[in-house]
Amino acid sequence: MTETVTQIEDAYPTRSVDRPNVIDRPDPTVWGSGREGPLDSATVRHYNDNGYLTIDQLVTPAELQEMKDELERLSEDPVVRADERTIVEPASQGVRSIFEIHNTSEVFKKIAHDPRVVNRARQLLGSDVYIHQSRVNFKPGFEGKEFSWHSDFETWHAEDGMPRTRAVSISISLTRNYSFNGPLMIMPGSHTKFVQCVGKTPEDNYKQSLQMQGPGTPDKKTLEGFADKYGIDVLEGEAGGAIMFDSNCMHASNSNITPFARSNVFIVYNSVENACGEPFAAPKARPEFAGSRDFTPAGQ
Amino acid sequence: MTETVTQIEDAYPTRSVDRPNVIDRPDPTVWGSGREGPLDSATVRHYNDNGYLTIDQLVTPAELQEMKDELERLSEDPVVRADERTIVEPASQGVRSIFEIHNTSEVFKKIAHDPRVVNRARQLLGSDVYIHQSRVNFKPGFEGKEFSWHSDFETWHAEDGMPRTRAVSISISLTRNYSFNGPLMIMPGSHTKFVQCVGKTPEDNYKQSLQMQGPGTPDKKTLEGFADKYGIDVLEGEAGGAIMFDSNCMHASNSNITPFARSNVFIVYNSVENACGEPFAAPKARPEFAGSRDFTPAGQ
Repeated sequence: MTETVTQIEDAYPTRSVDRPNVIDRPDPTVWGSGREGPLDSATVRHYNDNGYLTIDQLVTPAELQEMKDELERLSEDPVVRADERTIVEPASQGVRSIFEIHNTSEVFKKIAHDPRVVNRARQLLGSDVYIHQSRVNFKPGFEGKEFSWHSDFETWHAEDGMPRTRAVSISISLTRNYSFNGPLMIMPGSHTKFVQCVGKTPEDNYKQSLQMQGPGTPDKKTLEGFADKYGIDVLEGEAGGAIMFDSNCMHASNSNITPFARSNVFIVYNSVENACGEPFAAPKARPEFAGSRDFTPAGQ
Repeated sequence: MTETVTQIEDAYPTRSVDRPNVIDRPDPTVWGSGREGPLDSATVRHYNDNGYLTIDQLVTPAELQEMKDELERLSEDPVVRADERTIVEPASQGVRSIFEIHNTSEVFKKIAHDPRVVNRARQLLGSDVYIHQSRVNFKPGFEGKEFSWHSDFETWHAEDGMPRTRAVSISISLTRNYSFNGPLMIMPGSHTKFVQCVGKTPEDNYKQSLQMQGPGTPDKKTLEGFADKYGIDVLEGEAGGAIMFDSNCMHASNSNITPFARSNVFIVYNSVENACGEPFAAPKARPEFAGSRDFTPAGQ
């Protein structure tokens, strides 16, 4: 059942303050009992405490190969390259991300609605879930670009109108994540705090922010304090494995100067009880491919 | 005793070829018996096979603090900042390296001639050694820049006239090296091969190359082959520890977007039997601060 929340308050004010500020997260990390499975209780506890969990092998070698082939096909398709939903690196002109792949590719639609993925998301969020965003990301060898520290939720709240921290992302690795080829880094425990960022959101900010970060970037002093308090976990792992992480984790990835490229499939599930409304801190909502308005439950 | 080698042949032709090429290194890694100490035989064997060795704690906490204080003093001194031997990051205007610190700073002169360092270098190179180059390196938090794959020897041979691979570098860590704050990465075993690079050396190349890399950079295909064959070791470790590595190791370091800054003292020891002559592939030799012409044995 799809349910829309009436926005009566802004529990996460951001981009409306004069100076950066850190507030306690008013919402839980695991919604509901978290005991329904398929995740075991130790894994759920790890997610609750650290803001993320890892899955050693989520897909089979055959499925992995199918997704890699599909990724190659998409990245070489001139129609896909020219599409607004494809983000091209300004300097190298290489494809960095292709958005909304759960609608445009049968292969990725299948995994986005697969019970192995959807049921884990349902368990963590305590409700039916819908797909807020999906994309494939490329980090080529030698010149893969870094992505600085941020909370995804800050952007989804400010620019997509997501009311509460009741969303979870899954990153399925299509290549091996070494410590040295720009893997995901998370400050474990940082998801329990919300960093209020300064700076107003410009019109059509997404056209810039999907390439380079601006508003919504936390200040250095807060990040130094977070790094000292929480430390940094580097998420290494094999191709075919996955990471699920809370929408409000402080995370980043280094550049990649090694010859080992990185790519992954990234899907965001939001609770149907947390559907997006008007943006909380932007002139208008981002386009559908960045923040979906189709609240149909996934996996059904 | 200082001895100068007469240059009768170029055993490592580079920047004179049409296409990149890999040749076997004609020289040993450990010169002489390598049995005199202070390094034990297992450590010498590791160095011989991998091209590097690590020292968990080289200096005392008090010495470490003294070096950190000296580094801070130097980097804040406007006379030092304005000196040709200080390399400033083009974008951020931050200090990246200060060269020739073994001559300009009593604190770093002391460690550069310390028997703990010099005797290890003597053991590996099988002779008296002199200081070819010294510097302190800074990699600030949030915006520390990457340094791409290269062999130091290729530059020292081409631009400083170093005849053979009979030099060793020591990097003494002044801060902790995590996997994620841009530590040294080495392809273990790569020191046994020499990559002939393409491209002529421009006049006064060092003014650019100390900031950004150009000639002397190996091609991508060779690097992909090396990475597959040798893999990549990431050299983590505590402040006060050190790494010694062969002049011809293929090495690099990633950028650093974490809040944890990195700094180290870097000293190159060359055998007195391998003193530099005319550059092998450059219009003229680099200045003294980059490649010293004072072949006086260190530590005496």
